[in-house]
Amino acid sequence: MSIPHHAPGEVIDISPYGLNFASATSETLIRQSHIEVFRFILKAGKTTPEHTAAGAVTIQCIEGEVELVLAEKSRVLKANNLVYLAAGHGHSVKALADSTLLITVLLQRE
Amino acid sequence: MSIPHHAPGEVIDISPYGLNFASATSETLIRQSHIEVFRFILKAGKTTPEHTAAGAVTIQCIEGEVELVLAEKSRVLKANNLVYLAAGHGHSVKALADSTLLITVLLQRE
Repeated sequence: MSIPHHAPGEVIDISPYGLNFASATSETLIRQSHIEVFRFILKAGKTTPEHTAAGAVTIQCIEGEVELVLAEKSRVLKANNLVYLAAGHGHSVKALADSTLLITVLLQRE
Repeated sequence: MSIPHHAPGEVIDISPYGLNFASATSETLIRQSHIEVFRFILKAGKTTPEHTAAGAVTIQCIEGEVELVLAEKSRVLKANNLVYLAAGHGHSVKALADSTLLITVLLQRE
């Protein structure tokens, strides 16, 4: 996760890396008081530890294919698929191909 | 905006309509207590009224090209562009081509 983040109103390119995937890096795109958006790179065969996001989350597959492992059922996300998980919904992600995810976390700070 | 919405964990297809754009319809994809995600269709030449979202918002261009008109400056969003606007940031959107937007609204209900 690298800085700098992008300011409100700034246009952010979230294009697939495609043939340039080898140079792809995970990056925090937006970090504001109630929201964080980051681009998450997961190479084919890699699996994240099981984790729980800091709030409700949407996960969008920009490229590749991942298995989203939930306690009750696994789901496959391909490019142009989106899923919502409520706060506290533990999950892990396994990359079935070189994959880029766009992850939006809602931080419910009171 | 049509129902039903999608449940947590359900995989949602947000692919561009492409050649099927003529049959595209705006749709609420996710409606939860702190987040709404909807797909917004705007045909070339159409402009939304100026409005302010109910909370902070991210706007992602899935296909087409729009002009995001902000008080201080206009921005052009093309496919695979993303922008964040803070709560209360008034804006309007003009479609420069047949366009689909993915709009995520954070509802800061206390």
